[in-house]
Amino acid sequence: MTPPATPPPGDDALTLDRAHVFHSWSAQGALAPLTIAGGLGCEVWDDAGRRYLDFSSQLVNINIGHQHPRVVAAITEQAGLLTTIAPGHAHLARGRAAQRITQHAPDGMNKVFFTNGGADANENAIRMARLHTGRDKIVSGYRSYHGNTGAAVVATGDWRRVPNEYASGHVHAFTPYLYRSDFWAQDEAQECERALAHLHRVLQCEGPSSVAAILLETIPGTAGVLTPPPGYLAGVRELADRYGILIILDEVMVGFGRTGQWFAFDGFDVRPDLVSFAKGVNSGYVPAGGVIISDEIAATFDERVFPGGLTYSGHPLAMAAIVGTLDAMADEGIVENARRVGAEAIGPGLAALAEKHPSIGEVRGLGVFWALELVRDRETREPVSPQSMVIVRDGCLARGLLPFTADNRIHVVPPCVVTTDEVATALAVYDEVLTTLEESL
Amino acid sequence: MTPPATPPPGDDALTLDRAHVFHSWSAQGALAPLTIAGGLGCEVWDDAGRRYLDFSSQLVNINIGHQHPRVVAAITEQAGLLTTIAPGHAHLARGRAAQRITQHAPDGMNKVFFTNGGADANENAIRMARLHTGRDKIVSGYRSYHGNTGAAVVATGDWRRVPNEYASGHVHAFTPYLYRSDFWAQDEAQECERALAHLHRVLQCEGPSSVAAILLETIPGTAGVLTPPPGYLAGVRELADRYGILIILDEVMVGFGRTGQWFAFDGFDVRPDLVSFAKGVNSGYVPAGGVIISDEIAATFDERVFPGGLTYSGHPLAMAAIVGTLDAMADEGIVENARRVGAEAIGPGLAALAEKHPSIGEVRGLGVFWALELVRDRETREPVSPQSMVIVRDGCLARGLLPFTADNRIHVVPPCVVTTDEVATALAVYDEVLTTLEESL
Ligand SMILES: Cc1ncc(COP(=O)(O)O)c(C=O)c1O
Ligand SMILES: Cc1ncc(COP(=O)(O)O)c(C=O)c1O
Repeated sequence: MTPPATPPPGDDALTLDRAHVFHSWSAQGALAPLTIAGGLGCEVWDDAGRRYLDFSSQLVNINIGHQHPRVVAAITEQAGLLTTIAPGHAHLARGRAAQRITQHAPDGMNKVFFTNGGADANENAIRMARLHTGRDKIVSGYRSYHGNTGAAVVATGDWRRVPNEYASGHVHAFTPYLYRSDFWAQDEAQECERALAHLHRVLQCEGPSSVAAILLETIPGTAGVLTPPPGYLAGVRELADRYGILIILDEVMVGFGRTGQWFAFDGFDVRPDLVSFAKGVNSGYVPAGGVIISDEIAATFDERVFPGGLTYSGHPLAMAAIVGTLDAMADEGIVENARRVGAEAIGPGLAALAEKHPSIGEVRGLGVFWALELVRDRETREPVSPQSMVIVRDGCLARGLLPFTADNRIHVVPPCVVTTDEVATALAVYDEVLTTLEESL
Repeated sequence: MTPPATPPPGDDALTLDRAHVFHSWSAQGALAPLTIAGGLGCEVWDDAGRRYLDFSSQLVNINIGHQHPRVVAAITEQAGLLTTIAPGHAHLARGRAAQRITQHAPDGMNKVFFTNGGADANENAIRMARLHTGRDKIVSGYRSYHGNTGAAVVATGDWRRVPNEYASGHVHAFTPYLYRSDFWAQDEAQECERALAHLHRVLQCEGPSSVAAILLETIPGTAGVLTPPPGYLAGVRELADRYGILIILDEVMVGFGRTGQWFAFDGFDVRPDLVSFAKGVNSGYVPAGGVIISDEIAATFDERVFPGGLTYSGHPLAMAAIVGTLDAMADEGIVENARRVGAEAIGPGLAALAEKHPSIGEVRGLGVFWALELVRDRETREPVSPQSMVIVRDGCLARGLLPFTADNRIHVVPPCVVTTDEVATALAVYDEVLTTLEESL
């Protein structure tokens, strides 16, 4: 690529950012963002040309890696043809995108409602569940994130819900997390059994016939890559069926290759009624999200008006990026790569780090979706402090690795195209940084 | 352009659409969407090459016209550089987009929070207003549309709110609409005075100190291009100031040229605290929206975390499209064109149609933002029936005009780049169609 040209004074990324850009989930005063000028595959570089290995996949969305040539070509081609058209019209790229998505979905899920991202995907899934069942309540997990809009943020379980509680009909339950069990469980089987018993009690106490849907991240992501124990999701399906409740699986972060499967739920014994997606469907090259709808729920709206919609539903440029992404992922075995690299390199590599570093309390994950839980003490499992996480983050950046950190955890979430060599490089960085961290403790 | 290639069986826009695409705001059973294959300027064409003059601007978003070469070039260039990056990083296109937008905004509004569209723009404006004031309630108009997500759809006044009422803290008031006055008013001055008195009574009864913001479309759009009477918005500002209430102006449909001004509020004596935008900012070439924030409100979040955000906030491809769009609009005098064509061609042309056609009850508008109110009877003002509107819509399509219809109205909303010749063509179509309509009545 061409070296970055020197911009005229004031017309540089950082100056303009600090003057005019208001940032998500932050106090604005003390922000010192990295300037990112470009990327390719698992690398990004800043305005000075300094390179970083991207083990964040940004917000865990660049599943296909940065600037995949086939996706860029699909966007460029569609840009020359038709960038946008109203949702009411039919357009080839839109139909093809919906077809590609449903091809990977379970049988009996043939329709897609498109949105701009994950939040509005969940909004519309919740809307469909309420109207299909005629019930109000949505039960979701405390350890979850579902987006920032009205219903999605109140369905969210984490701290981001609390200043935003202006939606009604939301109930939260505890979900499996053996390492910090909310059920005083000693092993996975017990965690599973108790989490199901707890969910059952919540449903009973809320009145099962008032519950429209149980909304779950198949594997809660931002909350810490909390793979549910075997049997949990099947048990949730059983409870749901007993009471005529729908299951919405939020696959925004885990869908389209992240776990080494097309959908994370492909790895579990569970059939969803609605699936919300975004991120990986086109790696975020153009904003897009949506809901995959069971035939039964879709039929509810054959004669009855579906009261939801948005200007950019099925946006042609976003759709072309979906077709380009999913075709490239299929042709190039990118989902299989994520599975293989996870099993052969990331998993064993992180396990070896855990052998060496007492600050690692637990290693969890699969595919290209892992978390290291960092603790001050393995016995008490006390999380490391926010200041310690600054050491981790800065240490990674200084060594040319863009990490993803959340609370007391490093999420190891590279693009699905990551190579074993890149994993080795990242593991070496984590190793050094954890040594530094442990010296500071 | 190349003639449309014959797609393999089943791989055509309509077949794929009916099999896999779930549509906004519709019963899905009987849909027969137009297939749109491409567009240029004020024209689109279907898969068979049949051309339509686009007087809908799709969902009133293609302000710069279809496939403007400078915007397409901006997208293509950015696509080759970096399609996407997390919101936390700084990126040149993002900074430039925010800078361009604030350049057109009033003094003292220097920061932009980016979203994916209009709904989440309003969600975040509402969030900012609540947190800045420490108050809960949002007062908006019954004749309004603000988007389909949790809070936005309940802030919405029209029928789309009713099946979606799961958000708290929303209050609705009646707003000016002299032709169908909710205040028994006889003239504009009276409508204005009474609408303000009514709003004041609503504020008093709700408890003014519980109201965070008054949220208004500067000119309610989907509700019927309801230009507020002189003095109304200034009066709202006065009421807001008296009680420490913020004003959010929703410029999603009216911003960026639609009214022949950069912002619709430039034509009124009112200063907003927050401005939500989407559509025209980049004509929807890449999904984008956002909130322009007063310095005072932005300062609230200097030390305090702003609890909102989304994966694609400030999406580079969308940002490049904003820079391309706003620069082309400025360089090519596109806003001035909208103003001039509105004043010289659309306004007088529609007035002449109203002279001739008794089915036109009222003509309202400015710039490229007009509505024809169709009535069975000018005295009673009884709206024409939904079946009549099917005649209007089908009549326009048969004559090669893509119309925008809502309730009993034709909205005359071409791109801002429309020429007087194109207006003449459209007026001739409306003329014929209204004759057919009147014969059917
Ligand atoms: C599981 C999950 N759901 C929903 C969302 C919201 O998606 P978006 O940021 O596109 O609105 C996210 C974003 O991180 C997510 O991880
Ligand atoms: C005034 C207004 N606000 C908000 C919206 C919602 O925008 P979006 O469809 O991008 O969510 C619209 C859409 O038509 C609108 O006209």
